[in-house]
Amino acid sequence: MSYYQKLEQHARKLSRLGHLSAICGWDQAAMMPSGGAEARSEAMAELAVIAHELSTADYLADWFEQAEQEQLSDAERISLAALKRQWMMHNILPADLVEQKSLLGSQCEHAWRTQRKENDWEGFKQNLIPVVNLARKEAAIRSKATGLSLYDALLDLYEPGMTSEVLDGIFADVKSWLPQLIQDVQNKQKNEAVLPLTGTFPIVEQNALSLDVMKLLNFDFNHGRLDISTHPFCGGVSTDVRITTRYDETDFTSALMGVIHETGHARYEQGLPHQWRDLPVGQARSMGIHESQSLFFEMQLSRNIDFARKLAPLAQKTFNRETDSALTAENLNTINTRVKPGFIRVDADEVTYPAHVILRYEIERDLIEGNIEVDDIPEIWDRKMQAYLGIDTKGNFKDGCMQDIHWTDGSFGYFPSYTLGAMYAAQFMAAMKKVVDVQAVITSGDLSPIFTWLETNIWSKGCTLSTDELVKQATGETLNPRFFQQHLMARYL
Amino acid sequence: MSYYQKLEQHARKLSRLGHLSAICGWDQAAMMPSGGAEARSEAMAELAVIAHELSTADYLADWFEQAEQEQLSDAERISLAALKRQWMMHNILPADLVEQKSLLGSQCEHAWRTQRKENDWEGFKQNLIPVVNLARKEAAIRSKATGLSLYDALLDLYEPGMTSEVLDGIFADVKSWLPQLIQDVQNKQKNEAVLPLTGTFPIVEQNALSLDVMKLLNFDFNHGRLDISTHPFCGGVSTDVRITTRYDETDFTSALMGVIHETGHARYEQGLPHQWRDLPVGQARSMGIHESQSLFFEMQLSRNIDFARKLAPLAQKTFNRETDSALTAENLNTINTRVKPGFIRVDADEVTYPAHVILRYEIERDLIEGNIEVDDIPEIWDRKMQAYLGIDTKGNFKDGCMQDIHWTDGSFGYFPSYTLGAMYAAQFMAAMKKVVDVQAVITSGDLSPIFTWLETNIWSKGCTLSTDELVKQATGETLNPRFFQQHLMARYL
Repeated sequence: MSYYQKLEQHARKLSRLGHLSAICGWDQAAMMPSGGAEARSEAMAELAVIAHELSTADYLADWFEQAEQEQLSDAERISLAALKRQWMMHNILPADLVEQKSLLGSQCEHAWRTQRKENDWEGFKQNLIPVVNLARKEAAIRSKATGLSLYDALLDLYEPGMTSEVLDGIFADVKSWLPQLIQDVQNKQKNEAVLPLTGTFPIVEQNALSLDVMKLLNFDFNHGRLDISTHPFCGGVSTDVRITTRYDETDFTSALMGVIHETGHARYEQGLPHQWRDLPVGQARSMGIHESQSLFFEMQLSRNIDFARKLAPLAQKTFNRETDSALTAENLNTINTRVKPGFIRVDADEVTYPAHVILRYEIERDLIEGNIEVDDIPEIWDRKMQAYLGIDTKGNFKDGCMQDIHWTDGSFGYFPSYTLGAMYAAQFMAAMKKVVDVQAVITSGDLSPIFTWLETNIWSKGCTLSTDELVKQATGETLNPRFFQQHLMARYL
Repeated sequence: MSYYQKLEQHARKLSRLGHLSAICGWDQAAMMPSGGAEARSEAMAELAVIAHELSTADYLADWFEQAEQEQLSDAERISLAALKRQWMMHNILPADLVEQKSLLGSQCEHAWRTQRKENDWEGFKQNLIPVVNLARKEAAIRSKATGLSLYDALLDLYEPGMTSEVLDGIFADVKSWLPQLIQDVQNKQKNEAVLPLTGTFPIVEQNALSLDVMKLLNFDFNHGRLDISTHPFCGGVSTDVRITTRYDETDFTSALMGVIHETGHARYEQGLPHQWRDLPVGQARSMGIHESQSLFFEMQLSRNIDFARKLAPLAQKTFNRETDSALTAENLNTINTRVKPGFIRVDADEVTYPAHVILRYEIERDLIEGNIEVDDIPEIWDRKMQAYLGIDTKGNFKDGCMQDIHWTDGSFGYFPSYTLGAMYAAQFMAAMKKVVDVQAVITSGDLSPIFTWLETNIWSKGCTLSTDELVKQATGETLNPRFFQQHLMARYL
């Protein structure tokens, strides 16, 4: 067996442990009763330590040195580089920090489940402070190893090649036109009639509608499933993708658009190159590209009148409301493209969403860089919400900085990916439209040509190209945020 | 840290890996889409290898030697003995056999899911033969290490202290009176009216009834849940017990009694001594004692008129059938105590059940001892079903030797535990009745005194006493099969 093959075998072993961790993590969020939390945290931490020990085994340095001398195919050489990056990332952290991160993260997340309901910032803070302190320690270690700044050393985990300097430029640009755009769109929409949804939409029927729409989006139910959790996510493994949603009985569109979003993530996972299933090179390119797929599904594909014309009859039938004027395609599309600054990022519309991301990015960057403390978060949160969206969050922690599960597990550096994803999605749609008649395809009800384009240009590439190269091969140029701005102006003004 | 403490820490680590394996195993049976099976099998096999490597680490021999020299409390000395037994059991098998067993077992079980539906013995056989061959290899290795016979070396894994010589004596006794008893009971019941259930019982309502009955049985929903799987089981971990059932829309009693059975297993797990949660000494005593708890719930507690009087109003209300004469307490009890030889062990009544177990025991004992081959199973199965129950299974593999998930994972030696469990359950009830007015307690609707007796005498003991000692302390004598015979005669004749 060559050293490269030994490294592949080693990576498969790690990937299999990751499989178990992913399924148990899904279970923790979607199935586990709360009394099981303590023992589960301990078990997950134990697995994390074992995976870390494997990832940092002494012999790997030699294996990499040897493998780099071997005759390898181009594909193997790319795979070896991905393996090496993964190895270096893992080797930076000491085992006790990894274990602590898993343990503190599980505790913080679990407590958050009840603390959020109770708007208990003081309680939540007690768990978040050690989580942030550990993240700072992690950033310091990674910074020293990579030569990147504290925050960039974390950002690099999710968006290789991206820096906060570049991001600050992009976000400064967005901040230069977004507040005005939000104003203009609101003024335009002020006089547009929208019929609010009335009555209740039973969860069991919403679930049936979700499954119908997942079928329309060619979700592979032989390799995945849909369940319920407090915070919607896409988890599991590429052969068995677990997506979740949460249902609001008074507003079915919220869960439905969430399901469409997660289905975008899920199809990316299901479409990854299976010949490299357990290897880094067979994984998704980056968080931003992952988010580009969920936002392609949710924003580019679904929030338009053509898609609404497929959705409306399904909704009318499922809820037995064939004569409800609120459930016409036109009204549903009006609801789905309504712009209204609000508290909750995951419920935010396409136009105000970047403001939420920029706010979170600026706070987490300053937290990690040590410019602010956990205690400062609510005040800064409120100030920025006022500035970007004109919203008051004073004392309302549960809809403010405690609104979602993010940060509880000590992972910082990936908020920018959400808005990078929106930008990539807009750029992919513009490129796709040159070769696919997207409107006609949606109207036909067989959306396969859309997914074939994504599969060919994005999914099947796995991690074989750099983000820049992937985007360039798919669209003819690297990231160009103007596509996003043009998309928003075309759709909303 | 003392050597004993090191061994405790090591056992906790293993227990935590077992936790993840249990949850992923539950997921595999209750949640996973079939396309996820291959990768899951690989992941589970990988974890099994890691656990095996830990269990067989070189340094443990020295740790045990050192620990045995240390000053230990009585409790620690008992714990050390349990740790050592576990260690010796694990050390007998080579790592590649453990990996093979997990992989072949997963494949056989997964294929069985579709093969059973298709009555495909020829296909199933192809997977079962390597599973049996591996089990024989395992038996040979264990036999050599323990000095026990091939089959007894496997039996010892589930019923420490029990041998096939003792079992053959017990089962010869049972065979001397059981066929006649089955005849007599059938003759007696021939003229007893029973109203059959009619119409359908929607799964969602059956599920609601299951949850109601689990509440009546004080199942702790903060530490467990109920789901659906092809083969009902009790899995998960003691802090988070996962029980499953399968629903038949034409007969709600089948799933319901199954749920009561699994609730018995679950409450034993939930009632184990938590101070020893991750240690062998804190685990259930044996398979037979575990089964005694499920059968105590299902047979001793539930199949009588007093319990039926609590059950009937719940069922009537849940199914909205207040006036259905088939759902009176009397009729439900008649249904639940009906004796009728049938194909399916898990659906068998209390009187014919031991015949199924003796049949399976005799086949698996001869399979492991090499007296018969996998190819012979259908013919022998049919012959014994004819002899013990007067039933023809020729060509009907799906209701014969392919009827359940057992054997697919290569575990042989635990069928006797089912009937040992029935015998222990009868003996426990006889002892309990000396101090608890069981009838009055059931009638009151607060069944706590019954569970308190079980918790005090069985659950809280964990694995601190030998089976004989546990039974003696709880009932005043060791296993006495007459209690079981007397119970059957009192209830059915």
